[in-house]
Amino acid sequence: MPTIARGSPEPVNSDRFDAEYDVITVGGGAAGLASALFSRWHGNSVVLLEKADELGGTTKKAAFWYWVPNNKAMQAAGMEDRKEDCIRYMARLSRPESYAPDDARFGLSDWEYAVCEAIYDNASPATELLSEKGALEYRHCEAVPDYWAEIPEDKCPTGRVLVPKGARDTMSDGGAVAVRTMSEACARDGVEIRTGHRVQRLVRNDQGRVTGVEVDTAANGPLRLKARKAVIFGSGGFTHDTDLRRNFLAQPVLGGCAAVTNEGDFVRIGAAAGAELRNMNYPWMCPIVLEKALNGDPGLIGTFSPSGDSMIYVDRTGRRVTNEKLAYNESAQAFFKWDPTKAEYPNLVLIAVWDQRSQEHSAGDEYGRFIVPPGCDDAHVIKGETLEALAEGIRARFAKYATAIGNLKVAEDFAATLKATIERFNTFAKAGRDEDFQRGERQVELLFNGPACADPAGPNPTMYPISNSGPYYAALLTGGNLDTKGGPMANPDGRILDRAGNVIPGLYGVGNCVASASARAYWAGGATLGPYLALAYCAANAANREPAN
Amino acid sequence: MPTIARGSPEPVNSDRFDAEYDVITVGGGAAGLASALFSRWHGNSVVLLEKADELGGTTKKAAFWYWVPNNKAMQAAGMEDRKEDCIRYMARLSRPESYAPDDARFGLSDWEYAVCEAIYDNASPATELLSEKGALEYRHCEAVPDYWAEIPEDKCPTGRVLVPKGARDTMSDGGAVAVRTMSEACARDGVEIRTGHRVQRLVRNDQGRVTGVEVDTAANGPLRLKARKAVIFGSGGFTHDTDLRRNFLAQPVLGGCAAVTNEGDFVRIGAAAGAELRNMNYPWMCPIVLEKALNGDPGLIGTFSPSGDSMIYVDRTGRRVTNEKLAYNESAQAFFKWDPTKAEYPNLVLIAVWDQRSQEHSAGDEYGRFIVPPGCDDAHVIKGETLEALAEGIRARFAKYATAIGNLKVAEDFAATLKATIERFNTFAKAGRDEDFQRGERQVELLFNGPACADPAGPNPTMYPISNSGPYYAALLTGGNLDTKGGPMANPDGRILDRAGNVIPGLYGVGNCVASASARAYWAGGATLGPYLALAYCAANAANREPAN
Repeated sequence: MPTIARGSPEPVNSDRFDAEYDVITVGGGAAGLASALFSRWHGNSVVLLEKADELGGTTKKAAFWYWVPNNKAMQAAGMEDRKEDCIRYMARLSRPESYAPDDARFGLSDWEYAVCEAIYDNASPATELLSEKGALEYRHCEAVPDYWAEIPEDKCPTGRVLVPKGARDTMSDGGAVAVRTMSEACARDGVEIRTGHRVQRLVRNDQGRVTGVEVDTAANGPLRLKARKAVIFGSGGFTHDTDLRRNFLAQPVLGGCAAVTNEGDFVRIGAAAGAELRNMNYPWMCPIVLEKALNGDPGLIGTFSPSGDSMIYVDRTGRRVTNEKLAYNESAQAFFKWDPTKAEYPNLVLIAVWDQRSQEHSAGDEYGRFIVPPGCDDAHVIKGETLEALAEGIRARFAKYATAIGNLKVAEDFAATLKATIERFNTFAKAGRDEDFQRGERQVELLFNGPACADPAGPNPTMYPISNSGPYYAALLTGGNLDTKGGPMANPDGRILDRAGNVIPGLYGVGNCVASASARAYWAGGATLGPYLALAYCAANAANREPAN
Repeated sequence: MPTIARGSPEPVNSDRFDAEYDVITVGGGAAGLASALFSRWHGNSVVLLEKADELGGTTKKAAFWYWVPNNKAMQAAGMEDRKEDCIRYMARLSRPESYAPDDARFGLSDWEYAVCEAIYDNASPATELLSEKGALEYRHCEAVPDYWAEIPEDKCPTGRVLVPKGARDTMSDGGAVAVRTMSEACARDGVEIRTGHRVQRLVRNDQGRVTGVEVDTAANGPLRLKARKAVIFGSGGFTHDTDLRRNFLAQPVLGGCAAVTNEGDFVRIGAAAGAELRNMNYPWMCPIVLEKALNGDPGLIGTFSPSGDSMIYVDRTGRRVTNEKLAYNESAQAFFKWDPTKAEYPNLVLIAVWDQRSQEHSAGDEYGRFIVPPGCDDAHVIKGETLEALAEGIRARFAKYATAIGNLKVAEDFAATLKATIERFNTFAKAGRDEDFQRGERQVELLFNGPACADPAGPNPTMYPISNSGPYYAALLTGGNLDTKGGPMANPDGRILDRAGNVIPGLYGVGNCVASASARAYWAGGATLGPYLALAYCAANAANREPAN
């Protein structure tokens, strides 16, 4: 893929353009595609600009579950999902430290509440319209639970998740399906698609209204494109910009599974145009395979499914430190524990260890599993006939990446400690109860448990004793991003707000490129894409009402 | 104090002014005062603008230790503090996750390294000049250790700390002394001081150079002041701006001990002028008394000294969860542990519990102690004749603040668990060894242990068995800020950089209002003020070289 270098994000003033449209949308993932389609269906002329040489962005790598509160399928099935209940659930998880059950906004800021409300109100109409138009038909995943199905604030613990109709039974290819069907709808309905177009900066008129963008192209040099009504950014976050990651994220993540083109373009372009920034601290998180992240592997998928029943995570001393089956956003937190006496992140790398049983029964090439079947890239897998041999392989791998992982070293007595850890885990597995970390006690943990051996399933299907003979396998994991949540602040209509709280005329944003009102929460599977479709619908509706300039 | 409302931070273009100076400095704490003095001593006309109605800012509340690597007193005492060693220590702690011992920059970014180098090179010349001029004379605290004196990268674990010469023996009033002596030097040497002047925005000329500021005054309405050479911001961070805190800080802190005027003014004013932001995630941290923070008490001092040997912190279940004597920046981390199965911060409030012995021997009104002597404000202290009675008082206090603390509730069996916790702690205290959290094993823990009973000091002076009879006392603590570390990015000369990495002509910044290169580290006591004096010196020197406009 030809890369187009980043230019200055500072806006320019001009009234001369190479081409013009009613609406310019930026980004070829779900947020950009949906914004383009919704805008086009209003009758606007629309162009979609994508930096890469193909559409899809992070969406193409995703399973594309989409979380749609009070969706039609729920209604048809008689599942009640009241607005107040749903927003309460969102608030409880987004700002747990200030959740106020009796407050009108449940402790959210006015902006956060308004956006959550817009998500509830518009997710279903948006997805219905996409479905009616044949751009994104769905099937209802009525049994898929929210990620916090057990908390009392979740009055509707299952039923909110949809998936593209054509996705395979395991749903893992939903993103590829959605990108295909939405792209086809764009072609059918006349959205102009331009790949290899990197938006560098905004164009404004003398009144300060955003009237277009300046683009560098892979093939034809710079262009200036006019948007008579609006520019809608639906591009990615800043997962692959090291400076932004280090200086804004709450945790020292080493990478993530966002498309490699997610370099924070709209953080810079928006800020340069005066946008207020929000939620720059909390990303969407997931464990990731360390080496794929450090090597910049564009195919990296977050470890959504930590499969394997005879599998544990241990730290460099050989001890378990977390529940391996936690939902990914929560599991990722364990890597960033700070040791206040040694000044280090002792868990920055954790080691997944499994035996031949899990290798045979729980391998898979979906949902970012680190236990992969023959024929898959297994460069990240360390193998040893004994635990001692495995330990030596792990030690060598730590040494190889020492300066990227804070010089963490594998303990001298790692193998012996690991043996004791396995013995303790095996006792839990036999009893079906993890006394240390409560593994397997939440619905979401069963959801992502992955392929497991049916015989014997045991009382807790997430655990099975690890064999006392080799071969053994290991993989190094760290905490990473799906993508970031921070960026310019958009109101529920997708209009970007400036530092004084006023809209920047003509400028819109949706998706990972703008601030998420979810703060630290990951409400459920599809809590990215469902809300983004809703907010793309709102943005396109508002943009359509803009007077043409 | 009359408050002056925040106005738009957007810069204006003008060439008409109400008054003019060579250099305008903003902020009446150490960074602003030092920048003003250094500028004045070059022969410039200088005004210092302070938003409050008196000078001092956060500095006035501080002990004003100042960390000065390779200072003259060390040199005189034959203590070697090599530049490479010092920067290595800074790097090891600032970016522990990317520390690279064999790298030329030790894993720091180029910018971080350059600023650390400037601190090392200039802290001593700056403090010597302040001393020679009589603006800030010092005495050497040769025995005060760095906060990470035990790590192998600290080749100079004591000797880098100075304190204002006139401070009392305990050094706690160093800030008041420094503000007084530096203010007197300003008056003596002709720095014009204007309090009640809130800088709202920058003034630029047609070439984009910063040429002054617009100010709202408490007494006389708006003013436009010209800076022929430079505007140097030395104002505060964003501790008291809820939006910035919630959307940028790594932790959900509820407040802090920065001056209440620290509302992130320069984050907004700088960003509006195109400044790149850095290190918005990691604040300077310390435990704080919960109720003082929630009530906005302007006199709040961080809990720098968790005094009391028969004193422990427990969580709402009655269990110890941390080493109570950790250096404050590290101690504060314990409050933000995330429970990934319950979606809550279980330690957001911890409860300090002590007995009559600690009340009698360890009370103090310095360094933010929560054990206070008679006559001090003790509204934060809960008292009970028995542990059961104490528990009821704690329970009521939690209930009072429920919506501010994520609805944390005191466990039903708190008193019984607390009793067991005390028994276990008492065993440790008798043996002099805390097997759970290693309390008292680091030099910094002894440094801040505060007044303690001499008899019997025991093998570990930080621990003494808690009495099995009342009265008992408690105080609620949370993690807070001294102040924040994020803001516009300044180069080692204090020049503010824009999003393209170019200097914004005429604009400078020093102190908590700009980004600290220390990332997540708190190197030592005075790691704020020592570097700020160094960087004020650099900024004033560079500003002096600016051509007058």
